Amino acid sequence: MTADIAAAKAALAHLELDENPVSLKAKSRDFFWYSPVLKARLDHVVGDFAVAPRTEAEVIEVLRTCYRHNVPVTTRGAGTGNYGQAMPLAGGCVLHMRNMAAVKEIHPGRVIVEPGCLLKDLDAATKAHSGQEIRMFSSTWATATIGGFIAGGSGGVGSCTWGSLRDLGNIIRLRVVTMEEEPRVLEFRGEELARVSHAYGTNGIISEIEMPLAPAYDWVEMFVATDEFDDAMAFAEDLANQDGILIKLATVFEAPIAHDYFQRVKPHVEPATNLVGLMVAPHSMDGFLTFLGRRPRARIIYRSDDNDWARGPGPVFEYGWNHTTLRALKVDPSITYLQVRYGFPRHRELVAKMREKFSPEVLQHLEVLREGGKVIFAGLSLVKFTTEERLDEIVRAHEEAGAMIFNPHRYTLEEGGRQTVDDRQLRFKKEADPKGLLNPGKMIAWDDPDFKYDRVYAYPGMKAAE
Amino acid sequence: MTADIAAAKAALAHLELDENPVSLKAKSRDFFWYSPVLKARLDHVVGDFAVAPRTEAEVIEVLRTCYRHNVPVTTRGAGTGNYGQAMPLAGGCVLHMRNMAAVKEIHPGRVIVEPGCLLKDLDAATKAHSGQEIRMFSSTWATATIGGFIAGGSGGVGSCTWGSLRDLGNIIRLRVVTMEEEPRVLEFRGEELARVSHAYGTNGIISEIEMPLAPAYDWVEMFVATDEFDDAMAFAEDLANQDGILIKLATVFEAPIAHDYFQRVKPHVEPATNLVGLMVAPHSMDGFLTFLGRRPRARIIYRSDDNDWARGPGPVFEYGWNHTTLRALKVDPSITYLQVRYGFPRHRELVAKMREKFSPEVLQHLEVLREGGKVIFAGLSLVKFTTEERLDEIVRAHEEAGAMIFNPHRYTLEEGGRQTVDDRQLRFKKEADPKGLLNPGKMIAWDDPDFKYDRVYAYPGMKAAE
Repeated sequence: MTADIAAAKAALAHLELDENPVSLKAKSRDFFWYSPVLKARLDHVVGDFAVAPRTEAEVIEVLRTCYRHNVPVTTRGAGTGNYGQAMPLAGGCVLHMRNMAAVKEIHPGRVIVEPGCLLKDLDAATKAHSGQEIRMFSSTWATATIGGFIAGGSGGVGSCTWGSLRDLGNIIRLRVVTMEEEPRVLEFRGEELARVSHAYGTNGIISEIEMPLAPAYDWVEMFVATDEFDDAMAFAEDLANQDGILIKLATVFEAPIAHDYFQRVKPHVEPATNLVGLMVAPHSMDGFLTFLGRRPRARIIYRSDDNDWARGPGPVFEYGWNHTTLRALKVDPSITYLQVRYGFPRHRELVAKMREKFSPEVLQHLEVLREGGKVIFAGLSLVKFTTEERLDEIVRAHEEAGAMIFNPHRYTLEEGGRQTVDDRQLRFKKEADPKGLLNPGKMIAWDDPDFKYDRVYAYPGMKAAE
Repeated sequence: MTADIAAAKAALAHLELDENPVSLKAKSRDFFWYSPVLKARLDHVVGDFAVAPRTEAEVIEVLRTCYRHNVPVTTRGAGTGNYGQAMPLAGGCVLHMRNMAAVKEIHPGRVIVEPGCLLKDLDAATKAHSGQEIRMFSSTWATATIGGFIAGGSGGVGSCTWGSLRDLGNIIRLRVVTMEEEPRVLEFRGEELARVSHAYGTNGIISEIEMPLAPAYDWVEMFVATDEFDDAMAFAEDLANQDGILIKLATVFEAPIAHDYFQRVKPHVEPATNLVGLMVAPHSMDGFLTFLGRRPRARIIYRSDDNDWARGPGPVFEYGWNHTTLRALKVDPSITYLQVRYGFPRHRELVAKMREKFSPEVLQHLEVLREGGKVIFAGLSLVKFTTEERLDEIVRAHEEAGAMIFNPHRYTLEEGGRQTVDDRQLRFKKEADPKGLLNPGKMIAWDDPDFKYDRVYAYPGMKAAE
């Protein structure tokens, strides 16, 4: 099965095609370079051409054409993922969704939107229409697309209240185009959503999305400082457990993250300052200040609606989630990170254990989120990278203690997830992508069903560096 | 200190005064007769006159006048409380708030309202204005006032998501008039709210309220049936723990409550049917139905947006909270109830224990609510009443097992609460009601600081039956 790139390009010439080497390279990359491990493996990856369909009919045409000519298709939104999700390992076609960005319908509690819409544009439309916004978004809100968030993300700002994208109710409906001789258009709800959400576009192309909405408020963004790490951790968790105080973000940064990596914050903190980043609904501020008043060891150093900082820090959520790593990397290129789940009820104990073992080689960056109705922590720990062996050792120590790791130094669904095959995704790939042309190399279960996870998976079909 | 009723009436004659024996008796009562214990003690209680101020200035005038003439003042909203909260044990003036019902301001996430506004009128105003509604309400939504709910209630429909009224953030601000020679008007926020919320009007009169709002949705109301009680209990709790599914109510009714006491539901259930009453946001229905699909032992028997019932059941929330008892009482006058807190994490275990010990003498009616970020149960158990001694025995058995009881067969704040003095309320009463004229007999700490709680408190100042 040989890809006939030239034939596919010729057949698609009437669409918005891009073969310019510079822009094509840009469209073939994401934030994979957060990881020195992925950087070493994926830096050369580039597609053969990119195409940006304007309609679902054009998506169908691209998929039909690429199917006929055996051309791999890797779909991308804005390329803000961190795991090479949208990188075309086998070359071929980069399906760029930027032209499909329409907000189609807005209703109380829900919106219907095309996948290429930026999160920020989606929120602007729903806010202007009826004072609503999406329940959760990645810290790349300003640049990321809703389709990329669903296909490649797991949660984010808002997950402290609403849980994760995978939780029932956080995606309502997905419309999906298959990669077959004659592509089909399917509508997924309920249990079927798990087939294609967080599947990196390996088994279908999302062409329309229905998402729940929450009320949009003028969130008050704050930084709260504490001298002791435990006080910061307790502050964030206990606040999230206040049922009457509506929050959208609670992030904990172990010292000296704020001082060393947050340049606009640095003048206002000491190296030993631990920080909590917050978004609180304006009508919950009285309750919040009452909560704060009970904690004399915590102090507000910044609030977005009332401060005297000469240079404002910008949105507080752009310090949390994956932006923490980004800011640290900019100051110290040797920094990388881990993704850890500290589950209820052992979450605080596990954090303490990992801190004792690894701080400051590993610094705690915790995101409060809800899982199964309980407040827990997602750790996006900052790691001072030395070698792959040491990184693996740190991963193992977390796993042995009971802190689950979602390894961000792997480009496959399985290795970056729970290291098990997702049968629903695999079964649907068999049905919807019989030639295995969608985002090849990202689903181990498809390529190598007997893979043992005893080493890093290396996709044999990866196009070599030229 | 003798009350000069005649002088007070004369001084207030220009206001809306009521001395008609029939209507005055009605205005002196609430739903105290839910309890055979209170029924025996309070049935004769009646005020000397009622006055319905139109403005805060008139409230001040009433309080100034009654203070001068040593006349007790008991404030009432609609009289839908169950504990004699609004009953004038010492006679005197009934301060009826029905004329102060204006919705003054509506903003994103909050509303400013006068205390006499009906919950249903408040919701209608905020919904029409901007698609908002109050976070929680009592099952007497159609007839109760917001002031009465705050002064005499603790939570209700919505507490499964937002917790209780006492939780930080669920009341923003209260404006309060004191009972002094020259009444003062005070504004309370934060910690100060606890002085007067749930204080039965014993230490100040609420003249304005600022409450948080949530988005108003066309909630889908449902009854879900199960054959086993445990399946109903697990269904309600697990649903409330689904972070992405927005609910406003989850109530569990042990069999045969639905069959025996819910007349419109009876044709659709068996005596052995356990029931769950639900309100689910319309945009969460896909998630809800997916959740339901995972539970083959649960089945929807009614949904408000799609059913073939010849006679509709009316609002599902009017089967929950204190309406459950009301419906049972109408069928079987010997029924009364308890209020139980089954706290996390022992809530299910405690319910099972009490069921084993007392069913069917005590039938489980559970309301899902959030407390400290965890889903727990409030039990409003239906009790087949025999004697006060047996009722006390049942109460004791619950307390010994670790299930806290808020005794609804007592008319004092302390006995109906945690059986301890609330120092904040007492201190504020000393300041704001030096003569002890506000709702006398309801705060034991004021009347008898050394009371030992070893027997039912009997207010010595209670006006005798004529």
